[in-house]
Amino acid sequence: LIDLIAFDADDTLWHNENLYSHAQERLQELLTPYHSGDGVVDELYRTEMDNLPAFGYGIKSFALSMIETAIRVTAGRIDGPGIQKIIDLAKEMKQAPVQLLEHVAEVIPVLSASHTLMLLTKGDLFDQESKIARSGLACHFMHIEIVSTKTVKVYHSLLSRHRIEPQRFLMVGNSLRSDVLPVVALGGHAVFIPYHVTWAHETVAKPEDSAPAPYVQLEHLGLLPAYVEQLCQRDDGTEGGL
Amino acid sequence: LIDLIAFDADDTLWHNENLYSHAQERLQELLTPYHSGDGVVDELYRTEMDNLPAFGYGIKSFALSMIETAIRVTAGRIDGPGIQKIIDLAKEMKQAPVQLLEHVAEVIPVLSASHTLMLLTKGDLFDQESKIARSGLACHFMHIEIVSTKTVKVYHSLLSRHRIEPQRFLMVGNSLRSDVLPVVALGGHAVFIPYHVTWAHETVAKPEDSAPAPYVQLEHLGLLPAYVEQLCQRDDGTEGGL
Repeated sequence: LIDLIAFDADDTLWHNENLYSHAQERLQELLTPYHSGDGVVDELYRTEMDNLPAFGYGIKSFALSMIETAIRVTAGRIDGPGIQKIIDLAKEMKQAPVQLLEHVAEVIPVLSASHTLMLLTKGDLFDQESKIARSGLACHFMHIEIVSTKTVKVYHSLLSRHRIEPQRFLMVGNSLRSDVLPVVALGGHAVFIPYHVTWAHETVAKPEDSAPAPYVQLEHLGLLPAYVEQLCQRDDGTEGGL
Repeated sequence: LIDLIAFDADDTLWHNENLYSHAQERLQELLTPYHSGDGVVDELYRTEMDNLPAFGYGIKSFALSMIETAIRVTAGRIDGPGIQKIIDLAKEMKQAPVQLLEHVAEVIPVLSASHTLMLLTKGDLFDQESKIARSGLACHFMHIEIVSTKTVKVYHSLLSRHRIEPQRFLMVGNSLRSDVLPVVALGGHAVFIPYHVTWAHETVAKPEDSAPAPYVQLEHLGLLPAYVEQLCQRDDGTEGGL
């Protein structure tokens, strides 16, 4: 049986990465007076990685990295109004409506009727609280946890704190690195639902094909209730056979 | 008796506001090629207030507001390298060593031997986790809670979650607005320890002198253990007298 189902938020319940992709395109356009635009995305990624220890994740960190990249690739020629446009772009990102992914609005209320749900998300506290409030989903989640990274250690301490055994925990998310592999390492269950865009930093090599997958991959969240039911029945069968 | 003592972090346990004051001075210096520097601090505060709904608190938000202010007060004349210096200033702030306030290093271990301590801080999750880790104090705190605001509602839900009655809760901090008044409104105990600089946004009018202060003001944290002892003895006395 499953005592707790936790969901990642960005790109699992609502669109997020497309905001960043769109901003990257806008940044390239903004730089056209100074720069061909070639290689800007790679330069931005390099800046983001360099800034991760100082600035962490989120839109503000992304904004500072966009500004720094714009200054570097234009050799300092970008002017004040050009930089202001980048800041305005970040404000638009912050205030963009929360767009739920397909099936989310139907599936979450159904699952919350039968299971305890947790929202377990990484990133800027202020950002995430604002998005959760605007998503209209907050009432279906018994717990909301915002963490700065999702490592085995973080999952372990979270499950201890909530007194949940890993084998009775199911994590659902779009990142193998953050949502799936650390949970599987602890002996928990994980459902991987890829999003059509993944930030380069979140990609990992997939486990070898020959090994049995210790997690399940679903095409979309609409398939989750059937999987949860199957998981619980399988457990019932095992227990009945003892 | 007191079941839980919670401490604010920035400017209660370690210096913080002086990082911002120092950055403001550096910003004025940076702008000297373009601007007299007069009114920059007021303009920056205005920008911060305008940006609060979109960007929240913390160094990254402050950095974006510094950049926006620099562009506005120079009428767009600040150049790329000038903006880069502001970003570098923010990185220095992020990486500045955590400087404990006087008495903190002695008092926290002493109190943690007799009481359950919580660190209850507002702001950027990533920032705060990094500072807590670098402070060397994390091991003395049973609970660490990072919230985006400190309202009566937030304290109420926090105390419910930890199953603490307000009259057995003591909050210690440098902000009347965030640390003292909401706790007192719930019937809890609060100790106000002013810091020599308070961010304008955190200032409130003091309660009228004629009313009995529902909280205690101490000059520094070194006086806290004696106050806690007195508070517990007073409770004992009351109970013994019934």
